[in-house]
Amino acid sequence: MTPEISYVIDTFFTLFAFVLIIFMVPGFAMFEAGLVRTKNVTAVLMMNTMIYAVASMAFLLIGYSIAFGSFGSDGMSQWAAFLFQMAFVGKVINIMSGGVSERAKIIPLAIFAVIMGGFIYPTVVNWAWGSDMLYGTFLDLNMYDLAGSTVIHSTGGWTLLAAILIIGNRKGRYTKTGAVRVIPASNIPLVTLGAFLLWIGWFGFNGGSVGSIASKENADAVALTILNTNTAGLAGAIIVGIFMQLKYKKLDITMILNGALGGLVAITAGPDLYNIYQPILIGAIGGILVVFAVPFFDKLKFDDPVGALSVHLVNGIWGTLAVGIFTDKLFLDQLKGIIIVAIFAFVSSYIVLFLINKIVPLKADDDVQMEGLDVNECGLEAYPEFKRAF
Amino acid sequence: MTPEISYVIDTFFTLFAFVLIIFMVPGFAMFEAGLVRTKNVTAVLMMNTMIYAVASMAFLLIGYSIAFGSFGSDGMSQWAAFLFQMAFVGKVINIMSGGVSERAKIIPLAIFAVIMGGFIYPTVVNWAWGSDMLYGTFLDLNMYDLAGSTVIHSTGGWTLLAAILIIGNRKGRYTKTGAVRVIPASNIPLVTLGAFLLWIGWFGFNGGSVGSIASKENADAVALTILNTNTAGLAGAIIVGIFMQLKYKKLDITMILNGALGGLVAITAGPDLYNIYQPILIGAIGGILVVFAVPFFDKLKFDDPVGALSVHLVNGIWGTLAVGIFTDKLFLDQLKGIIIVAIFAFVSSYIVLFLINKIVPLKADDDVQMEGLDVNECGLEAYPEFKRAF
Amino acid sequence: MTPEISYVIDTFFTLFAFVLIIFMVPGFAMFEAGLVRTKNVTAVLMMNTMIYAVASMAFLLIGYSIAFGSFGSDGMSQWAAFLFQMAFVGKVINIMSGGVSERAKIIPLAIFAVIMGGFIYPTVVNWAWGSDMLYGTFLDLNMYDLAGSTVIHSTGGWTLLAAILIIGNRKGRYTKTGAVRVIPASNIPLVTLGAFLLWIGWFGFNGGSVGSIASKENADAVALTILNTNTAGLAGAIIVGIFMQLKYKKLDITMILNGALGGLVAITAGPDLYNIYQPILIGAIGGILVVFAVPFFDKLKFDDPVGALSVHLVNGIWGTLAVGIFTDKLFLDQLKGIIIVAIFAFVSSYIVLFLINKIVPLKADDDVQMEGLDVNECGLEAYPEFKRAF
Repeated sequence: MTPEISYVIDTFFTLFAFVLIIFMVPGFAMFEAGLVRTKNVTAVLMMNTMIYAVASMAFLLIGYSIAFGSFGSDGMSQWAAFLFQMAFVGKVINIMSGGVSERAKIIPLAIFAVIMGGFIYPTVVNWAWGSDMLYGTFLDLNMYDLAGSTVIHSTGGWTLLAAILIIGNRKGRYTKTGAVRVIPASNIPLVTLGAFLLWIGWFGFNGGSVGSIASKENADAVALTILNTNTAGLAGAIIVGIFMQLKYKKLDITMILNGALGGLVAITAGPDLYNIYQPILIGAIGGILVVFAVPFFDKLKFDDPVGALSVHLVNGIWGTLAVGIFTDKLFLDQLKGIIIVAIFAFVSSYIVLFLINKIVPLKADDDVQMEGLDVNECGLEAYPEFKRAF
Repeated sequence: MTPEISYVIDTFFTLFAFVLIIFMVPGFAMFEAGLVRTKNVTAVLMMNTMIYAVASMAFLLIGYSIAFGSFGSDGMSQWAAFLFQMAFVGKVINIMSGGVSERAKIIPLAIFAVIMGGFIYPTVVNWAWGSDMLYGTFLDLNMYDLAGSTVIHSTGGWTLLAAILIIGNRKGRYTKTGAVRVIPASNIPLVTLGAFLLWIGWFGFNGGSVGSIASKENADAVALTILNTNTAGLAGAIIVGIFMQLKYKKLDITMILNGALGGLVAITAGPDLYNIYQPILIGAIGGILVVFAVPFFDKLKFDDPVGALSVHLVNGIWGTLAVGIFTDKLFLDQLKGIIIVAIFAFVSSYIVLFLINKIVPLKADDDVQMEGLDVNECGLEAYPEFKRAF
Repeated sequence: MTPEISYVIDTFFTLFAFVLIIFMVPGFAMFEAGLVRTKNVTAVLMMNTMIYAVASMAFLLIGYSIAFGSFGSDGMSQWAAFLFQMAFVGKVINIMSGGVSERAKIIPLAIFAVIMGGFIYPTVVNWAWGSDMLYGTFLDLNMYDLAGSTVIHSTGGWTLLAAILIIGNRKGRYTKTGAVRVIPASNIPLVTLGAFLLWIGWFGFNGGSVGSIASKENADAVALTILNTNTAGLAGAIIVGIFMQLKYKKLDITMILNGALGGLVAITAGPDLYNIYQPILIGAIGGILVVFAVPFFDKLKFDDPVGALSVHLVNGIWGTLAVGIFTDKLFLDQLKGIIIVAIFAFVSSYIVLFLINKIVPLKADDDVQMEGLDVNECGLEAYPEFKRAF
């Protein structure tokens, strides 16, 4: 294969992967909009839209050069390489914004998205995937993280944890006695649609992260990556389905879809390294972790309406460790990477969110929460003609 | 073109086709969820999710080797070849599950999906498309069925017929005098979204079934296949639109979308064999068949909330016969294939469903149907905040 | 690269672009269905479906040969080249149909779609993109319009203007004193989903319009085109977001999404000609134009429920002029192209719509509008079980 043919095919392939990831923009938007109450649906959609817009723009103007030094790519069009990386950045912040839904205000979170997309996330990328290392060699991560179990998912998760600590919980989520008040999802078809758009986006996310399809070996690696990605999602859904049926005799679809997403997060660190059966185990453990993590975080009173901590933080860690357990990558390198990213992502997000919160308060007032963020933040309702049952 | 270039391009192309087919997972889910009443929407979504999960897993662990003997593919990555075939299996079962919506329970149907995805469907594939024949040469099918008018659609349809016979109808669908009680679709945007996601998925389904794009001839065949697939869908929609307007002065969108799907099913046996005008006729007949089949099955009291018998069974047969009529493929080979698959799919499904029904009853009780399957099966409602008009 | 490899890759790439554009069919359908009142949702969905069906069929049977003389393409499969062009035609008419939603009847508009898809639009394509020129050389347009800021978007916009003049406004849109009565969108998640499906479709629209990816230069051009397309959309959303927040303290999501679409329309004439920063300016101006054009058209009492004039007509003109301002293409050639297309599209549409209106009235009666078009035109409601608040 001549270099030109390889250049053309890899450019095309990377644009294909980019487009699949962009399906995650409506994917996250629908998933999260379906999980919140009708009175907050527009605000969630607006948040998702603004995050895509401002984080991508910040990455174009600043972030990409922090992460990779400069535009440029030998094996494919530099613009395709850029687009692929740009598609990731909004996702990291979506993970966070979903978890503080129904009480976080849009403008200060959009300001945070600029800083996250322009500086914090690119720094993590530079350490893990970048061509030249910032801040000296002691941070030279040897962690294997193909498509970002740590770089994307636990970074987003740690940022969410910082945000929950600063913003606090939704009014009425926990009673005075500490009990959890169940707040049902308002639109299950949207949740399902969103979950499957995310699932499809994952094929581009992980498949594209192989970096090239333009050789027999790479074509095999890409196909294996997509196969293993899918298998882990299947396993996550199945195991949570079995668990729900055995324990509650009810197939809670939001938990089962989150189980699938948990499996997808877990496989993301090394889908190219496993045989075709290992993802069943990795995804199943990912699903089970979601089932136990959701009540665990509720016990800690970390209010997370969409289960993002359980899906992205817990499974981002699990998936990165799994590479150290099931392959010949060093467990300690994986652990070191997790810890360094955790410290950096949590501390830097905490500081930035803390400062933003001093200037533009992040949390909507109690009465705004009662009325719903849609009217106050966006000036319109999501479903104005549908009479509400409560 | 060197073998390596061809290998890379066909792997990439097959992954592209695979991804398009996976859009049919939310496609079927939205289509069916929009067609049922709000009280059964979550159950339909859950059913679609579980079918994708368990049938794909069964095909990975068992079914693929029954169908094709072993993993492996010369011209492309074996994993891409596997993923493409795996994407089909859930569709066959979706066809069935949609038709027994609003009264079939999820768990026993998921058990059936394992057997269907692991054994029944792979046997049909082995006969029609597999590399080595099971069960002796008398079943050596010479039927031409590029992307599965028979292998996918009428197999799913016969399975649905068996399921309807065993499970029976929705409570209240037919009055004591035998009249049909109209049960309106609850969410037309979802139906429309689902239909177009299915339509888009069909491009991957049929285009990918050409098997290779990596030569001038194959590139032409793939493009012609996608063009003809689309044309048949257009013709199905148009003819049903004209019919509805002339007969009822109302453009019933659910019937028109089913007309499009009927055209798409009908073209699926041989989209690569026709010139660019023949699909207009084949698709139009497909649409008209839907219009007449829907009341026909209602007269027989086969309760099918989504019209799956009319779309998939009737047009699966029509499409397979059409290849024998409009091309030089032998009509009798087509007919023989239809009949053998019909007998096998119907009988094996009937037996398996009958046995499952003895152990885990397939049908929800009348009072569960009255309350809606969502609360009973999934423990939550699809739209809990929207006040119901009835 | 051998001609065969290039042929295969460009066929595949063009099919990929085609599929992305087809996502605009549900994209437009969801976007417009979400923006209208619940009582007109089914009619909007039906209109979108019928337009795709009949306009594509008319283009297959008649329009393509008017536009391009004959089937045939040297560098790729002629069927892929056809499909790509066919995917455009429905979009032009969607632009129009959206703007006359909630009062235009489906059947006469479908008749118009046949003439638009078979004759009017293909004539514009012939002048701007066709291989041989109709009607003599004085119409030989030198306008640079890569993917149709003028050919698609302002053509659709001028057609819409003609349609609004003939059909008139929705009952109750303007009070007797001339004030605008606000009619809120009924389903914001659908609007958002639709907008992002359109956005994704744009990558195929503009990227595919480069015409080939099969060389290093072309691969770069395609990737740059997609990057710049995306950037203009980001800028449109951001600038409208900032404007809304500063002026109203409310992030009106429908305006912000229309701002993004305005940016996307504006970049469409020359995404391959700009550096990676110019689209920020072009898209931002596009967004601002939407913000000012919406009340401007309302002042003129041009009732446009989805903002299509502001998004497609205004920004189609702006985007085509921008090429003359920011690149070395001649401004006067751009202006001449805009004017010729404007005159032809407006006059021919006006005449055809006028004649259709004499035979089959285009506008639904006041009482049908009050009841909603769904029941009268389609015989069913979009959400029959959801109790309406008003």
